[in-house]
Amino acid sequence: MIRVGIIGGTGYTGVELLRLLATHPEAEIAVITSRGEAGVPVADLFANLRGYLDLKFVDPEAADLGGCDVVFSATPTGIAMTYARDVLASGARLIDVAADFRLKDVHAWEHWYGMQHACPELLAHAVYGLPELYRDEIRDAQLVANPGCYPTAVTLGLLPLVEDGLADPTAIIADAKSGVSGAGRNAKLGSLLAEVSDSFKAYAVPAHRHTPEINQALSAAGGVDADILFVPHLAPMIRGIHATLYAGLQDVTVDLQHRYEERYADEPFVDVLPPGSHPDTRSVRGANLCRIAVHRPGGGDRVVVLSVIDNLVKGAAGQAIQNMNIMFGLDETRGLLIPALLP
Amino acid sequence: MIRVGIIGGTGYTGVELLRLLATHPEAEIAVITSRGEAGVPVADLFANLRGYLDLKFVDPEAADLGGCDVVFSATPTGIAMTYARDVLASGARLIDVAADFRLKDVHAWEHWYGMQHACPELLAHAVYGLPELYRDEIRDAQLVANPGCYPTAVTLGLLPLVEDGLADPTAIIADAKSGVSGAGRNAKLGSLLAEVSDSFKAYAVPAHRHTPEINQALSAAGGVDADILFVPHLAPMIRGIHATLYAGLQDVTVDLQHRYEERYADEPFVDVLPPGSHPDTRSVRGANLCRIAVHRPGGGDRVVVLSVIDNLVKGAAGQAIQNMNIMFGLDETRGLLIPALLP
Amino acid sequence: MIRVGIIGGTGYTGVELLRLLATHPEAEIAVITSRGEAGVPVADLFANLRGYLDLKFVDPEAADLGGCDVVFSATPTGIAMTYARDVLASGARLIDVAADFRLKDVHAWEHWYGMQHACPELLAHAVYGLPELYRDEIRDAQLVANPGCYPTAVTLGLLPLVEDGLADPTAIIADAKSGVSGAGRNAKLGSLLAEVSDSFKAYAVPAHRHTPEINQALSAAGGVDADILFVPHLAPMIRGIHATLYAGLQDVTVDLQHRYEERYADEPFVDVLPPGSHPDTRSVRGANLCRIAVHRPGGGDRVVVLSVIDNLVKGAAGQAIQNMNIMFGLDETRGLLIPALLP
Amino acid sequence: MIRVGIIGGTGYTGVELLRLLATHPEAEIAVITSRGEAGVPVADLFANLRGYLDLKFVDPEAADLGGCDVVFSATPTGIAMTYARDVLASGARLIDVAADFRLKDVHAWEHWYGMQHACPELLAHAVYGLPELYRDEIRDAQLVANPGCYPTAVTLGLLPLVEDGLADPTAIIADAKSGVSGAGRNAKLGSLLAEVSDSFKAYAVPAHRHTPEINQALSAAGGVDADILFVPHLAPMIRGIHATLYAGLQDVTVDLQHRYEERYADEPFVDVLPPGSHPDTRSVRGANLCRIAVHRPGGGDRVVVLSVIDNLVKGAAGQAIQNMNIMFGLDETRGLLIPALLP
Repeated sequence: MIRVGIIGGTGYTGVELLRLLATHPEAEIAVITSRGEAGVPVADLFANLRGYLDLKFVDPEAADLGGCDVVFSATPTGIAMTYARDVLASGARLIDVAADFRLKDVHAWEHWYGMQHACPELLAHAVYGLPELYRDEIRDAQLVANPGCYPTAVTLGLLPLVEDGLADPTAIIADAKSGVSGAGRNAKLGSLLAEVSDSFKAYAVPAHRHTPEINQALSAAGGVDADILFVPHLAPMIRGIHATLYAGLQDVTVDLQHRYEERYADEPFVDVLPPGSHPDTRSVRGANLCRIAVHRPGGGDRVVVLSVIDNLVKGAAGQAIQNMNIMFGLDETRGLLIPALLP
Repeated sequence: MIRVGIIGGTGYTGVELLRLLATHPEAEIAVITSRGEAGVPVADLFANLRGYLDLKFVDPEAADLGGCDVVFSATPTGIAMTYARDVLASGARLIDVAADFRLKDVHAWEHWYGMQHACPELLAHAVYGLPELYRDEIRDAQLVANPGCYPTAVTLGLLPLVEDGLADPTAIIADAKSGVSGAGRNAKLGSLLAEVSDSFKAYAVPAHRHTPEINQALSAAGGVDADILFVPHLAPMIRGIHATLYAGLQDVTVDLQHRYEERYADEPFVDVLPPGSHPDTRSVRGANLCRIAVHRPGGGDRVVVLSVIDNLVKGAAGQAIQNMNIMFGLDETRGLLIPALLP
Repeated sequence: MIRVGIIGGTGYTGVELLRLLATHPEAEIAVITSRGEAGVPVADLFANLRGYLDLKFVDPEAADLGGCDVVFSATPTGIAMTYARDVLASGARLIDVAADFRLKDVHAWEHWYGMQHACPELLAHAVYGLPELYRDEIRDAQLVANPGCYPTAVTLGLLPLVEDGLADPTAIIADAKSGVSGAGRNAKLGSLLAEVSDSFKAYAVPAHRHTPEINQALSAAGGVDADILFVPHLAPMIRGIHATLYAGLQDVTVDLQHRYEERYADEPFVDVLPPGSHPDTRSVRGANLCRIAVHRPGGGDRVVVLSVIDNLVKGAAGQAIQNMNIMFGLDETRGLLIPALLP
Repeated sequence: MIRVGIIGGTGYTGVELLRLLATHPEAEIAVITSRGEAGVPVADLFANLRGYLDLKFVDPEAADLGGCDVVFSATPTGIAMTYARDVLASGARLIDVAADFRLKDVHAWEHWYGMQHACPELLAHAVYGLPELYRDEIRDAQLVANPGCYPTAVTLGLLPLVEDGLADPTAIIADAKSGVSGAGRNAKLGSLLAEVSDSFKAYAVPAHRHTPEINQALSAAGGVDADILFVPHLAPMIRGIHATLYAGLQDVTVDLQHRYEERYADEPFVDVLPPGSHPDTRSVRGANLCRIAVHRPGGGDRVVVLSVIDNLVKGAAGQAIQNMNIMFGLDETRGLLIPALLP
């Protein structure tokens, strides 16, 4: 059994890690920390876990992470970097589901996140935890930077285009829509049901922190500097990301459907749909899965890729556990073969 | 492995049976029928099952149910009774998730369902599939009438009161609220998102078919004729039933909380919450679980019981599989220990 | 033109007052205060008002309410009582949409609201602003206590029963369901879309502040001490209250439908539906209207009344303006004849 | 008073026409037809209209449209063309809110709508009812083709770019999201709450009928053949369209914000928001208004325009009444100055 520690488990990524780990046959949660909820049973906070987890939050200061094989950090961005060295020094491997280690360029990171990085020397060692791109590196990584939710949906939707040079990565548009859980379990006016239900809006059109992360992944994959136009939207639903991706096709003779199917043939958590499909986000609700459909309207040189994930699963906690499985030599699908909840 | 047949698997109970059976370690789906969708892969209809089930609907006429150990009938009420004899004659055991065999009194049945019963002689043999009340009988049953969704939530919420004669079963009110999936996967104007979203209404106040079913179960449990006032409502959500149950307490000295905890101490799928709790339906979303809270406002003789289930799981498909587990001598929780999806 | 002041206009009652007053032909908003948003145009906070109101929030200290004919207080309970004397002394009449002046008994008020009342001597002068019960008193009132949302729906649903002694007011149950806007425009975890959408729950079952308010109104109407059992629920929608009211009928020969129609025949904002109806809350969304249906399931002695309002309109801002119309001798329906938004 | 006839008033456009006309000070509804609901009071079908409209549906055969000044046709596409000649011959002017007369090219129309046009000679006389583009022509039109919902949001969002040649109309992408009411008041599986709530999907990516309509309007405005890439999506909400529009800027020195403000300075129903804005659809819910924000992420040559409308108001019924106001010489805003419902 893998001994798991979770730092900062009171958010939506936290509860999702707990849900998935509670039934994982080869992992056990040894400790979960929370400054604000120390002493409180996790099932008091997250009623779905009553009967599944008999565990209390402990204060981070009092927590003994030493015996853990792996630590998931589910704290807001900017916290993991303050204790990453200690966790690694203790011998545990670290999977950060926030953004602390996602960008390689410390200057870019400090620009986008508006703070000084506490351990820039670790950035080079951190592996970007997108198994479809960095599986081999993840296997041996001590520190994994779990990808953002939008970057997961967008990057997986574009990899076959970009890797093969089929699309110009400086002229791609990613119009993405997310459920409200993406804003986290925080008491914010803008996330109230009465504010966002039965409504739809774009946000952060001028700039969003996931843009450099997407560009970094696509540039690495394509060998060319990517410069994507990324526009996120807030959809009135709990979970789910739908990325609608627009690209110009450099070679109109290519069989795109075949390329996508081939690229992801061995990927357990990427599902390329038959031609003409329109995936809905509920088809991956609660599931660690990215479903993709590829269109060429009118058969021309314009490509539209539809890519859907559950932002809390393949976009966060599920992918983190997928990374854990890889890091510890387990079958990559262990504990993650859970069909989506539909309807 | 238990060989399972499903008749009429294109509704919400059908897809939920498929979701739960797809990962059940001791059951395999041998055949699933649908008149309208014969030849179509189930994953084409229910995208969440892509990758989990490689199965096509077959025409009921062409279906070979002979080799099945158990058949789930998920057709609308009035259909199962037309083939129940044949299924049983073939040696398979039958679990009907519709209402064909739920009432013992054929006249009452014909009155409430407005049709003639096709095999009234089977009513006496049918066991009402509420494990918390009829576990022993279910074990040996050839024919199980799986309870309705409302009756499950209401009956479980009231059993400890009624069994012990703590409440007068002719003066109980059940104010129940259901998500829209309870109306089935049917193209009905009244179930459109644009009709029911952001709105709330009661329906069938004069009379609802689940009233006699609830009364039958409570009468059997309490040994006194029950005559409940049952009022259902439609809530703007997909899944979930919340029953708010009002009763007058005959003996104000009783420790109700203790009674409830004691009654359900050994029940794997009934969870009595701590005093003062208010369960939300999402705490059982996707889970085969009934969560119950007991209140006595002001400490007087009025009891308020809150009982929540997922109408498609403990209120339908999950309970049906729980019954299957019991009928085939498996651990009752086999394949059903799935935490609810929250948020 | 009536000169209107609004104190504390940044909540949902505030924006609703603004929406309705913006098109009211005989009222003009002279001043609107907010401590936190002083200097901000109201249309920056509430985008629906862009183009309709060219008005900025002003600091309450700097606000000149002196010239106002009427002041609406839309601050949280406990604030209006601190400035009520001053407002009244300035010559303006005051309509408080919070709970400061709703209970006549200061001890009861202090018990339920957990604070000392700042001007108990005004309680006797305050008129409870339910026009269907106190129209004459409202006409001349200097201080109107606008009813709570639940009390409006429940009281209007029960008045004909209680006034005529048709039901025992100590054995009535009010099972009420509210949209999330009832919790106010406050950044609370429990009001997040990700927490309450696609879910349903009861709350405050042991005790809720609206119980004494309902009892006070019903007692006054019926001449007998009422002791209602009131249980509120949170429904996953923005607006709307649905009260399902249960009572025992003292006289089964009465024509209930006729009584209800007769009682409300001259009421412009109470609509008694035809027999057999089930009003949905969307039929009053955005409208200053209470729709009521009366049922006697099985024709027996149990009555079920369904009563729906929009909690922000007839349950708050709309009723406040209805009161203003009465107080200033206008046609009571002035500015309020706006059909509900459906779908 | 303008005498109004409505043909086919049982859909969502129908009820919205009724809501808006019920309080229009210079119009009265003389007749409303429905084949299926003949004899039924409109308020029985649309409960929001109880007390506002005392009118019954009449059979189209029996309807006397002769005395009407204007007839709104709210039937599905393909029906209005069968009676358009008769209506016009009777002396009434006709506003068709379906698509029968929206395309000038009869071959294109027959291709996209898959049927033969019944009165192609009227296409040349029909005026496309987008007041912001064809106000003068609408004034004298006998036959107005009311624009589609998507085309209204997209065209208004792009007009200033296209009219001034600021963007290449063959390289524009319109990523549009619509609420479910856009699919009409039809009993369709795909519009059930249980199917579309808490989910998000694209549809009709290969081709959608609104594409040629948009291209026709933009081509006329810009004097160049437009060839837009239009991708519609279904959002889990009742009302609202959010169009996210992507274009390449031909001249980066232009002050886009100023251009937009100038273009729409005199338009009563187009609201250009301040720089940096992100309109939400609820800010126009129930209102006859298009709100627009213009962005240039990074200050480069890529433009992102956000354009929101209520699909049933500015996208259908409200715009139809705006056209009626223009056609009959009324103030264009008559009966339409209704603030959006928020929250």
